[in-house]
Amino acid sequence: MAVKTIEWRAGSVRMIDQRLLPGREVIRTYRDYRRVAEAIRTMVIRGAPAIGVAAAMGVALAIRGTSGQRARARFERAANLLKATRPTAVNLAWAVDRMGRVFEASLALDAAHLYRRMRDEAIAIYQEDLAANRMLGRNGAALLTSPASVLTHCNAGALATAGYGTALGVIRAACEDGKEVRVFSMAASVLRAGQVDCVIVGTDRTAANGDVANKVGTYPLAVLARRHHVPFYVAAPLSSIDLECANGDQIPIEQRPSTELTEFGGKPIAPKGVEVFNPAFDVTPAELVTAIITERGIAYPPFDESLATLKRPR
Amino acid sequence: MAVKTIEWRAGSVRMIDQRLLPGREVIRTYRDYRRVAEAIRTMVIRGAPAIGVAAAMGVALAIRGTSGQRARARFERAANLLKATRPTAVNLAWAVDRMGRVFEASLALDAAHLYRRMRDEAIAIYQEDLAANRMLGRNGAALLTSPASVLTHCNAGALATAGYGTALGVIRAACEDGKEVRVFSMAASVLRAGQVDCVIVGTDRTAANGDVANKVGTYPLAVLARRHHVPFYVAAPLSSIDLECANGDQIPIEQRPSTELTEFGGKPIAPKGVEVFNPAFDVTPAELVTAIITERGIAYPPFDESLATLKRPR
Repeated sequence: MAVKTIEWRAGSVRMIDQRLLPGREVIRTYRDYRRVAEAIRTMVIRGAPAIGVAAAMGVALAIRGTSGQRARARFERAANLLKATRPTAVNLAWAVDRMGRVFEASLALDAAHLYRRMRDEAIAIYQEDLAANRMLGRNGAALLTSPASVLTHCNAGALATAGYGTALGVIRAACEDGKEVRVFSMAASVLRAGQVDCVIVGTDRTAANGDVANKVGTYPLAVLARRHHVPFYVAAPLSSIDLECANGDQIPIEQRPSTELTEFGGKPIAPKGVEVFNPAFDVTPAELVTAIITERGIAYPPFDESLATLKRPR
Repeated sequence: MAVKTIEWRAGSVRMIDQRLLPGREVIRTYRDYRRVAEAIRTMVIRGAPAIGVAAAMGVALAIRGTSGQRARARFERAANLLKATRPTAVNLAWAVDRMGRVFEASLALDAAHLYRRMRDEAIAIYQEDLAANRMLGRNGAALLTSPASVLTHCNAGALATAGYGTALGVIRAACEDGKEVRVFSMAASVLRAGQVDCVIVGTDRTAANGDVANKVGTYPLAVLARRHHVPFYVAAPLSSIDLECANGDQIPIEQRPSTELTEFGGKPIAPKGVEVFNPAFDVTPAELVTAIITERGIAYPPFDESLATLKRPR
C-alpha cells in the first residue's frame, strides 16, 4: 500500500499523473518550477497536503543555480506563480511562505548551499506531512469503535497527501489497530437508516472559528449528519488550518472551468453562452462540526480557542 | 428541441441509445420484446415515464402474430420479463398492467386485430405521457415567479419521458410563459447562499402517503431545502404515483451492479471481495415535500388525501 504521490529524486520532482488513474500509472518528472505549477493547476496532483508539498519542491527547483538578488527575483516569481494555481487549499500558501522564511534566512549562502538548504526544507515538508498524517490517524482512530461504520467524501487518502491520508488515514490507523471498519461514500440513505457511526472528511482550509472548506458536497453531508445525530469529524493537518481566516466567508472558493459542465469529450453539451457556477469546494459552518482531528490532538468547540491552542508553536 | 426518446414506427420500437450520449446519437430498432427488456435493463432507455412507455410497446411486440392461449402465454412471459428489468419505477408495472387489462378485454379478437388493439394502447400510453407532461408542466409553472432560480437533480427532462419532461417540463413551461428561470444542479452552497427559490425533482415512484423515491441524492436535497426554508416540489405524472404502496418503506430500491464502483473501464479499482452498497434511488419522506405537481393539479399535504383525490378515476 506504499503510494508515492510525490517524491524528490535526483534534483527533480516526480509525481503520479492522477488524471490518468485508474487506467494508467504514469510518473511525471519535473525539473522546472513552471511545469510544477502547471501540474498543480491541471490536477496532475491534487489534495491540499499534496499540493503544499509540490509547491515547496517547486520553489526549490526555482532557485537552483542562483543566489543573492537573482535568487530573490526567482523566488518571488515562483512563489507568485505557485500560489496562484489553486486558491482554496491553504497548505499551498503555507508551504510557499515557509520556504520563504528559510530563503530569507539563507540569503547569505552561495548558490549550491542555498539550493541544498531549500531542497532539504521541501523534503522536510514532505516528511512532516507524512508524519502528521500518521499522528492524526492515530489520534482519530481513538474516536472509532470496533466495528465502526464510517462515511467519507472525496479525496482524502494517500494520493491527496505525501502518502498516508487524512480522513482515510484515520480509517487506516483504526484498521492497523485491528478495528473492523466499514466505509461508505456519499449515500444519505445509509445515514437515514442509522448505519453510520461517524462521518470523517478532510479539509482544504479550516478557518480560525472552525468553518471548514472542503470538496463540494461536504456541507450537505454535515447537515445530514446533524439531522441523524451522527458525529461529523474533520481530519485536518495543522498545515490546513488558517488562523488568518477568521471564518469561512474569508476562504476563497475556487471555480472550476465551466467546460467541465458544458463539454464532454471536447464536444459541447449545453446551449452556447450558458452561465456556469461550478465551485470546487463548499464551506461547512463550525456549528455542524463535532471535532477537528490534528496531529497534535483533537480540537473540540469552541474552535477559536482549541485550534489556537493546538497551532501555538511549542 | 423535439426529442424522440422512443417511438413506435412500422411495427418496431425505436429508441435513442442513451448510453452513448452525448458523444453519439444512435437510434436502436427492436422488433423482439426480449431486446426491449434488455434495453431497459441495460439503460439504453431510462427515466420512469420513458421505461413505462417502452414496456408497453414491448408487450405489443410480444403478442404479435398470436391469439387465444398462445397469446396469453406470450403476454405472461413478456409481462414478467419486462416487470423484472427495473424494480423501483412504478410506471413500468403500471404500463404492463394497463396493457394486461386491454389484453384480457380483447382475447376474443383474431391475431391481427388483437395486435392492432395492443399496439394502439401502447401508442396511447406514449401520447398520454406526453400530454400529462405538458399539463403537469403548466400546473407547475404557476408555482414559479419570474425571475425564478430552480434547483433540480438527475434525469427529469425530455429523455426521461415520452418527450417533454417532468421536473424540466415545469421549467420548460415556465420559459414558454416568458418567465426568466435560472437552473442549478446539486450545489448545496447555492441553497445556503439563499440563491434558490425552489427545488423541483421527478420521481420513480411516490407512495400513497407522499413518500418519494427518486434518484439517489434526492433525499439530501430535500433535507437541505427544508433547512434553508426553500419549497421542495415533486413533478409526478399520475402514472408514477402508487397508491398500493402505503409508504416509502414498501418501495423496492434497485441496487445497481457493484462493478459500477469496483471497476473503471473494465479494470478493477477496489480490493477484491469488497462489499458494495450501490442504491440507484433513495426515499424522501413526505414531511419534507411541499407539494406534488401532477397533470390533474397540485397535491398538498396531507398527501394520503390529496393524492387519492387526484388519482380517482373521472
